Amino acid sequence: LEVLRITLHNYGKKKKKIILHSLSASLQTELRHRLGATPTEEMNGAGNLMDFLDEPFPDVGTYEDFHTIDWLREKSRDTDRHRKITSKSKESIWELIKSLLDAWSGWVVMLLIGLLSGTLAGVIDLAVDWMTDLKEGVCLSAFWYSHEQCCWTSNETTFDDRDKCPQWQKWAELMTGHAEGAGAYVLNYFLYILWALLFSFLAVSLVRVFAPYACGSGIPEIKTILSGFIIRGYLGKWTLLIKTVTLVLAVSSGLSLGKEGPLVHVACCCGNLFCSLFSKYSKNEGKRREVLSAAAAAGVSVAFGAPIGGVLFSLEEVSYYFPLKTLWRSFFAALVAAFTLRSINPFGNSRLVLFYVEYHTPWYMAELVPFILLGVFGGLWGTLFIRANIAWCRRRKTTQLGKYPVLEVIAVTGITAVLAYPNPYTRRSTSELISELFNDCGALESSQLCDYINNPNMSRPVDDIPDRPAGPGVYNALWQLALALVFKIVITIFTFGMKIPSGLFIPSMAVGAIAGRIVGIAVEQMAYHHHDWIIFKNWCRPGADCVTPGLYAMVGAAACLGGVTRMTVSLVVIMFELTGGLEYIVPLMAAAVTSKWVADAFGKEGIYESHIQLNGYPYLDVRDEFTHRTLATDVMRPRRSEPPLAVLTQDTTTVEDVETLIKDTDYNGFPVVVSRESERLIGFVQRRDLTLAIKNARQKQDGVVSSSVVYFTEDAPQLPASNPQPLKLRRILNLSPFTVTDHTPMETVVDIFRKLGLRQCLVTRSGRLLGIITKKDVLRHMAQMMNQDPESIMFN
Amino acid sequence: LEVLRITLHNYGKKKKKIILHSLSASLQTELRHRLGATPTEEMNGAGNLMDFLDEPFPDVGTYEDFHTIDWLREKSRDTDRHRKITSKSKESIWELIKSLLDAWSGWVVMLLIGLLSGTLAGVIDLAVDWMTDLKEGVCLSAFWYSHEQCCWTSNETTFDDRDKCPQWQKWAELMTGHAEGAGAYVLNYFLYILWALLFSFLAVSLVRVFAPYACGSGIPEIKTILSGFIIRGYLGKWTLLIKTVTLVLAVSSGLSLGKEGPLVHVACCCGNLFCSLFSKYSKNEGKRREVLSAAAAAGVSVAFGAPIGGVLFSLEEVSYYFPLKTLWRSFFAALVAAFTLRSINPFGNSRLVLFYVEYHTPWYMAELVPFILLGVFGGLWGTLFIRANIAWCRRRKTTQLGKYPVLEVIAVTGITAVLAYPNPYTRRSTSELISELFNDCGALESSQLCDYINNPNMSRPVDDIPDRPAGPGVYNALWQLALALVFKIVITIFTFGMKIPSGLFIPSMAVGAIAGRIVGIAVEQMAYHHHDWIIFKNWCRPGADCVTPGLYAMVGAAACLGGVTRMTVSLVVIMFELTGGLEYIVPLMAAAVTSKWVADAFGKEGIYESHIQLNGYPYLDVRDEFTHRTLATDVMRPRRSEPPLAVLTQDTTTVEDVETLIKDTDYNGFPVVVSRESERLIGFVQRRDLTLAIKNARQKQDGVVSSSVVYFTEDAPQLPASNPQPLKLRRILNLSPFTVTDHTPMETVVDIFRKLGLRQCLVTRSGRLLGIITKKDVLRHMAQMMNQDPESIMFN
Repeated sequence: LEVLRITLHNYGKKKKKIILHSLSASLQTELRHRLGATPTEEMNGAGNLMDFLDEPFPDVGTYEDFHTIDWLREKSRDTDRHRKITSKSKESIWELIKSLLDAWSGWVVMLLIGLLSGTLAGVIDLAVDWMTDLKEGVCLSAFWYSHEQCCWTSNETTFDDRDKCPQWQKWAELMTGHAEGAGAYVLNYFLYILWALLFSFLAVSLVRVFAPYACGSGIPEIKTILSGFIIRGYLGKWTLLIKTVTLVLAVSSGLSLGKEGPLVHVACCCGNLFCSLFSKYSKNEGKRREVLSAAAAAGVSVAFGAPIGGVLFSLEEVSYYFPLKTLWRSFFAALVAAFTLRSINPFGNSRLVLFYVEYHTPWYMAELVPFILLGVFGGLWGTLFIRANIAWCRRRKTTQLGKYPVLEVIAVTGITAVLAYPNPYTRRSTSELISELFNDCGALESSQLCDYINNPNMSRPVDDIPDRPAGPGVYNALWQLALALVFKIVITIFTFGMKIPSGLFIPSMAVGAIAGRIVGIAVEQMAYHHHDWIIFKNWCRPGADCVTPGLYAMVGAAACLGGVTRMTVSLVVIMFELTGGLEYIVPLMAAAVTSKWVADAFGKEGIYESHIQLNGYPYLDVRDEFTHRTLATDVMRPRRSEPPLAVLTQDTTTVEDVETLIKDTDYNGFPVVVSRESERLIGFVQRRDLTLAIKNARQKQDGVVSSSVVYFTEDAPQLPASNPQPLKLRRILNLSPFTVTDHTPMETVVDIFRKLGLRQCLVTRSGRLLGIITKKDVLRHMAQMMNQDPESIMFN
Repeated sequence: LEVLRITLHNYGKKKKKIILHSLSASLQTELRHRLGATPTEEMNGAGNLMDFLDEPFPDVGTYEDFHTIDWLREKSRDTDRHRKITSKSKESIWELIKSLLDAWSGWVVMLLIGLLSGTLAGVIDLAVDWMTDLKEGVCLSAFWYSHEQCCWTSNETTFDDRDKCPQWQKWAELMTGHAEGAGAYVLNYFLYILWALLFSFLAVSLVRVFAPYACGSGIPEIKTILSGFIIRGYLGKWTLLIKTVTLVLAVSSGLSLGKEGPLVHVACCCGNLFCSLFSKYSKNEGKRREVLSAAAAAGVSVAFGAPIGGVLFSLEEVSYYFPLKTLWRSFFAALVAAFTLRSINPFGNSRLVLFYVEYHTPWYMAELVPFILLGVFGGLWGTLFIRANIAWCRRRKTTQLGKYPVLEVIAVTGITAVLAYPNPYTRRSTSELISELFNDCGALESSQLCDYINNPNMSRPVDDIPDRPAGPGVYNALWQLALALVFKIVITIFTFGMKIPSGLFIPSMAVGAIAGRIVGIAVEQMAYHHHDWIIFKNWCRPGADCVTPGLYAMVGAAACLGGVTRMTVSLVVIMFELTGGLEYIVPLMAAAVTSKWVADAFGKEGIYESHIQLNGYPYLDVRDEFTHRTLATDVMRPRRSEPPLAVLTQDTTTVEDVETLIKDTDYNGFPVVVSRESERLIGFVQRRDLTLAIKNARQKQDGVVSSSVVYFTEDAPQLPASNPQPLKLRRILNLSPFTVTDHTPMETVVDIFRKLGLRQCLVTRSGRLLGIITKKDVLRHMAQMMNQDPESIMFN
């Protein structure tokens, strides 16, 4: 036996099997044992498949680009891998350590993702700060300082003076020596536009040349990828690098876009990067997606400094399959990322959050009316934005416009810069604007928005300033804000979707914050001048501090963001983490829910779903309820008019037949039946596996020729020696294909596809194979039922 | 035709069909149209089933007690109902209004749940406060005031004196006139025990007599119900009433139990109550469970004043099927409940949360070591508690002990009261204890725990008190706390599981808080006395405020609660909502995760899962990963040694055969095959539907006798008049039964059962029916594979 074993080792694995078959049964078992294959493994169809996938052909079991994955299969592969490691771990201490490392690798990946995405977010924040200020001027003491950093070391003590510290010089001042005057203004204006154009040109060129996938927000694509679609390179290293760099450039250029969506993309790229360190994740598309879900949470966590909100965003908005295990890991990754960011401290205030606010006054029931009105505004803005943006993007796709992306970016940047500079509220970066709008007017505030007429008799603590009449600065600011609102609304529609990284959280929030602040000031002034009105009588006495315009801005921001993205819980939680008090949850919730209802009345899809549809990604939305009364038989193929289903038989097809079938069709797989007459289903074989197996057999296995019979049965019959060597392919046959009957309602089929993440499903009637339903068929049918263009769905 | 239509209306629905069959096809369509049935409805198998279920027999489509529901079927029924309403809504304005009301009913139910559970929680809080104090004394000015309320109106200004206001008198003082002395102490002691015994006797008697389901925490049962099991009356009105009353009594009696778990049960009862108002929820077990998930969130929300934590608790711990829609609604319900509670303001501080804390000092990296040690302690406590409690509960179930529940409660209450009174930390209510342990020592604190030696030179603001040496009061408190810790650990094991409402959040948190505070004081004193040690050198200079013992208590509480329940994210979020600052998330997370890892190393199940197993509920845990290499064929029944599967044939079974089969077997349903020879599957019929249909046909349909043939085919053949009238039952046949092949790995089968919520699944091989797998078979197999007692699973 020992000799035989050694001899066998010199043969390929296929050969072993052939020799084994000619030995007696008992000897076989003995041998298999010695060769490390246990009888159970042999018994098990899926196990066999796995053994096979692991070794002979490297590519078997992977997916092609732009194809959907089979979640069940991925899961089963992972369980198999896990089983193997567990059984091996009992063999030696080294294997035990390896198995422990494997078990911990998930947490390690989370830690790495948190560290890297936190660091990147910090670097991006610092770079954006510096480059945004570079458009206006430069720090003389150290050119790499932003305006704020430059003046930190300054000796001026008042807030007003600190902004004008001598170390910081505007371009005109530096070049001509004059800080004021028309000439200086024009020169500054000109340089502002020039820098903006330079930044955006660099950004779009980098994207065009190095990483076309780095454009946009990335969230629609990540949603699609997480739902089980393969887009190779979308989360690659190159995309990560370019997206990080171009994001800085794009945000600094002053375009109406934010860094939040792209940060999610960046974090997912980090996740993908670290997946490749561990074969557990790199070789399993299902497990990889668990990591990516957590990475998305880390991305939002650093974008806003809201770890819980990030996890809920990933759960509510981005992820498809979110088991509890992923919940814990996402939370861990989000926390690590947030604390890494805090250690870098890019905002210089050791606060975690982007817009830290603290309000001191409670809100009153009657204020719910303006809050709900802001919700309605948010819903309407969401609808308008989505419709207009999708229409514009469609035009870009279908007309000449799409052929000049660089020109488009340059043009939009130019227009943005020209229109933005004269208005102080649009000139600065959008997040600074939001920050100012959210802020409550304290006693030390120097902003124009806080230019209230002071009562000289006042002697109250700083925190509790009563309502006062608005001064000329406030009225001036209101006009400028109204203009900024119109500008932001229009320009954002054209900006989102260009070939540069662009998020729309910040622009949406800006629109809402401006509207909210305007409403807030209006309510405040109304309450001040009309204390005697019935609605104000109860809660707003003269000299009391009853309306907080900053809160209105925050509510408006939540409403507009909700209208565009249709987030609800995660949105409220993010806002809650920004304010840090349960006090304001009810206003935020009221606005978010109103905005969602209003927006939903005009169309169910949020901006991300709309873009998914526009791009025709095969995304099966968890939220769409399929309520039509169709049956599996109405959707399955072949239709009545079509040629019959391409099937293989278990023991009568030849290699040549198979090759012809593969050449003539482009299906992803073929059902295997007992015989063409009975059409009883045996299993399902993937096209890719079949191609590879035949190619391999032709190369390595003697005697396999075109006329060889392909056997999917357990044992090939003993053929006369004159017949060509048979090819046994039971090992690549999936013996547990998913079937439904032709009478199954489509709502159930849709549910099964969604929940189990199937790629295809076979349709039978009383045991006979009738047809096949693929994910694409399901999507096409759903689109048809909703009167959409079914042909837009990408091939999968 | 008009005449015919009127005539037809006078017949039963079955008859209509029979007449219809004898009419010509075109007339049929015309008639069906007039009778309100559209052709599509007729085409659709599932639709037919629904029509049928709605009308003829009231009970068809419902479930029996202690049976599992079929989620897919419930979902399909709801879609059908929705479809009907939508199509009707186009007919008239009234129908449109009705459809809108239906669409909004979900939100209305949430609002009602929030209002009622918030109110109940407020009432419970107030009653518990009053009755807990009643054990010690009474308010003379108004006997319905608790100690705190009684002294609010008092004129004494210092904290110390306020506790001893003259309106509040201890029993001994009231009865004998002496407030001090051994006699008064003994009398107070005696009355304390007496009240405790009275309360607990009332509680256990009420539970025994009126609502046996009102005992325990209720969370294991709610988990089981939410996973799709029917326990009639568990969420009934009677249970709601009795549980609310007995919860007050049980908590007031001073037993080592909390009100958090039972509050979840109470909220779920409210949810169930309001479900009955809307047929959308009352008639659909699947939809009802969505409401119950949200109600659970509302329950936790009012228990802790943590709405977000409540939603996450429902998601992480309780719910089985949690679609996004439920997420939004849960959040809404949780918010409404929290704000209702706040309006009632039972704690008198207008705070939402149970333990409001505010810390002023940051934590340092080195402190992570004690935090992680607390996590280890929490994990060990969790393991000890679960093992000991389950062993005790098993003993209670299997021995004589279980027969005397009233005596048991009385005995435990007696022991608790006797041991608790002498120790000031166990005498007061557990939530007060936790509150004190969480608190940071401010300058005005009069507690023994804050008896530090003051430096007379100190002149700092109140918020920032430096570390000081501990005074004798602190050392005294430490001893008492250590005794309280041992007492709590032991008594809680015996308390949880008795026949009274009992939650274990509060006792677990108390154990952790005591341990944490002890560790915290130890670290603080070490840091104070050894400033020069390397580990303290960097972060703890003399005169600095570097260790917050209250934070340690909080971390310990989180660790112990985590060890017992295995919550992670929801736990951290609840704690985050209590403190309101992101600052302390890392310590909490570190402790919670460590505690979970440590506890998981000794056994995967949390206390709720252990109790589910102990009671043998058919609960398919989402978190258990099934990793064994078995196939469907190993699990399906019949086994090789068993008689063949009980099947019906589509056109050869007689009514008598069916009745015999129903009588002889106790299966929940029967597969229908083409013929016994071919065994090709046609559909599946529920036992309950079959019984009802035959009973109904025998009563109402002429000519159906024992020898009538039952037809499951589309059309019964024309039989000679001599043959008995056939019985056509295609309408109750489920034409889309779920099938898998015999080669399907069990891990996939388990996955399918979990995700789709199946009741049973048929097993086929190449189109032939081989056997059946029920949820019970799956559970039994999983238990077998994990070496547990498979027979403990309740019959479903």
